[in-house]
Amino acid sequence: MSPRFARRLDGIEISMIRQIMSRAAGCVNLGLGEPEFADPPRVRKQARRVLQGGRIGYSPNAGIPELCRRVHEYHGGRGGHSVCVTNGSQEALFDAVFALAGPGDEVLVPNPGYVTYPTAVRLAGATPVPYPLRSRDGFRLDSEALKALVSPRTRALILNTPSNPTGRSLTLEQLQGAARLAEENDLVLVSDEIYRETHYGTPPPSVLDATDAAVVICGFSKAAAMTGWRLGWACGPRAIIDKVTVLHQNTSICASTLTQRAALALFTPEGRDEIERLRQRMVRNRLLTCRWLGRRMGQAFVPPDGAFYVMVSIEETGLDSLSASLEMLQDKVATIPGAAFGSEGEGYLRLSFACRPESLRKGLRRFETGINRLVQNRK
Amino acid sequence: MSPRFARRLDGIEISMIRQIMSRAAGCVNLGLGEPEFADPPRVRKQARRVLQGGRIGYSPNAGIPELCRRVHEYHGGRGGHSVCVTNGSQEALFDAVFALAGPGDEVLVPNPGYVTYPTAVRLAGATPVPYPLRSRDGFRLDSEALKALVSPRTRALILNTPSNPTGRSLTLEQLQGAARLAEENDLVLVSDEIYRETHYGTPPPSVLDATDAAVVICGFSKAAAMTGWRLGWACGPRAIIDKVTVLHQNTSICASTLTQRAALALFTPEGRDEIERLRQRMVRNRLLTCRWLGRRMGQAFVPPDGAFYVMVSIEETGLDSLSASLEMLQDKVATIPGAAFGSEGEGYLRLSFACRPESLRKGLRRFETGINRLVQNRK
Repeated sequence: MSPRFARRLDGIEISMIRQIMSRAAGCVNLGLGEPEFADPPRVRKQARRVLQGGRIGYSPNAGIPELCRRVHEYHGGRGGHSVCVTNGSQEALFDAVFALAGPGDEVLVPNPGYVTYPTAVRLAGATPVPYPLRSRDGFRLDSEALKALVSPRTRALILNTPSNPTGRSLTLEQLQGAARLAEENDLVLVSDEIYRETHYGTPPPSVLDATDAAVVICGFSKAAAMTGWRLGWACGPRAIIDKVTVLHQNTSICASTLTQRAALALFTPEGRDEIERLRQRMVRNRLLTCRWLGRRMGQAFVPPDGAFYVMVSIEETGLDSLSASLEMLQDKVATIPGAAFGSEGEGYLRLSFACRPESLRKGLRRFETGINRLVQNRK
Repeated sequence: MSPRFARRLDGIEISMIRQIMSRAAGCVNLGLGEPEFADPPRVRKQARRVLQGGRIGYSPNAGIPELCRRVHEYHGGRGGHSVCVTNGSQEALFDAVFALAGPGDEVLVPNPGYVTYPTAVRLAGATPVPYPLRSRDGFRLDSEALKALVSPRTRALILNTPSNPTGRSLTLEQLQGAARLAEENDLVLVSDEIYRETHYGTPPPSVLDATDAAVVICGFSKAAAMTGWRLGWACGPRAIIDKVTVLHQNTSICASTLTQRAALALFTPEGRDEIERLRQRMVRNRLLTCRWLGRRMGQAFVPPDGAFYVMVSIEETGLDSLSASLEMLQDKVATIPGAAFGSEGEGYLRLSFACRPESLRKGLRRFETGINRLVQNRK
């Protein structure tokens, strides 16, 4: 048998990030996409309670009604909005893209941006159109460039705030600009706000602060360190969420009922406190990282507003980001090449500071050694 | 905003089954697609152990290596085969269909058959081509009719054994015939064997008993009454499973790590005993149901080889299956119209006997009353 595959898979392989991570054995991992912290004790307690109770059967497709209500409130409780709970925010994103775009359509995706955005668009048979977050301008959204990329084929604009990999948040003005652009061109805003609770100043505005006509993709994987529990959702106008739910029914029936019931514990004052404690740990890690990079190494980087990544310039090594990242595996530290996120990421490495402080210190020391070695090599 | 949606969603709505279930409040539910039994104590014990341990982070995309190994062994441990663990078998099916078929392609699906088969094919942009399981022949596969439906555009053949909704298993000869057909026409066999552990005689043969060149879709949702835990998988030739894993990475990153770790408890002698105990309960429910239908009501039905469904003829009511199913909601019993599964299901109602025995008896009494009422109405 020589199986033929659907053309949607042409050129799509396991992501460059996973490929580098697979070579990272023995390295301090500054490439992580998840907090290396324990999840909230309240969630575990609630999960144990569920395990002492009755049957853990299918939930309604869109999720347990109480959880849907809580999530709806969490995003402002807007009239006409509904919620579909998914197997992590990844599934919510995939279902939304598949509901909105197909062959012949275009979807605007950030460059640099999370690799699944262009991949999901391609898998849907549509064309991803990257819009620039200019590295020379601290990865700020170039609103004029974005506007110029809208065409009659554009069906959706994917936003990501705070951003993976840049750590930058969009301002309310930028979100309002995106909302106007969407309204004028009859396209749907899909805003991935999975890092919204991980911020280092005032909470970043949501797209829903600028317009009701947008779909928010979110979850507790990052804020509550619950990546392996698989809980995410899409929240937005009912007409769209109904279509997302149809996709969700067919891709996975429902999210884990055990996880859904356990996650209810996060929507309590105590649950909120535990999320805030996790955020405070991330605040300390960010401070440690930025100090190390700035004062000790004098390295150029973009201070993150949110998420747990920092883009560090490798200009002085003279290497492209993939070569630099591969070289640093010799120094036993794993980082992600900026180019993995798009052309505007070239010249940078993405460092994650979501690991335990002791690993972080060790990783930063190795990173310092590695950068110095590469700069020396160049001379 | 008047959102436009991808054409793949045209004509695809929440399934007829869910629609009827949403009107079934106050009814005894003989429409269930899940066992109304408790899941195995060993799984819960193992889950509690996981909750006492460290972080529950992402698993590798394809699943925890130990679980992948166990699943591979479970399906015969064939050389060249690998496994991708998914968010229920539904996701495995969706990912496999999306990997194999796209616009311009055809996929053969059983009629009557599980509604997600044609829907997933349509969502992939391909055309579902129903092949008949003849109701007049006890829903036996019509191998000649199947053969005649293969075209140069056919990319895959979906098998389902034991079948939802018919309860019939495919024989080894039928599977061997399908394997020859697949080889001669360079198409991929995708065999949904989610009900393989729920059988009422000798265990049904797997497609892998007929050929190594097939993908099996399976999981423990039905056998271990774990529908809400969301654990399924695809197992088959590595080249195909690699593509399924790419889809899986993009649709959901990984299945619940908590569920994956808990499910390891099923791959032990004690876990196997608990699955066998659940099967014995289903054996008793099947006996109760078949006796009631046959001796007491004299109703025509097809005795199931496996799964927990029985197709009951409603010919004597003179009604089509949707009308009969809706009428019976007045008798406070919910059943699924055979037509929901395709044209060959017309003239039948699907009864599920996966509920608790006390509900089952009550439901069968109401079903008897309902049928008698409808037959009287006709006169």
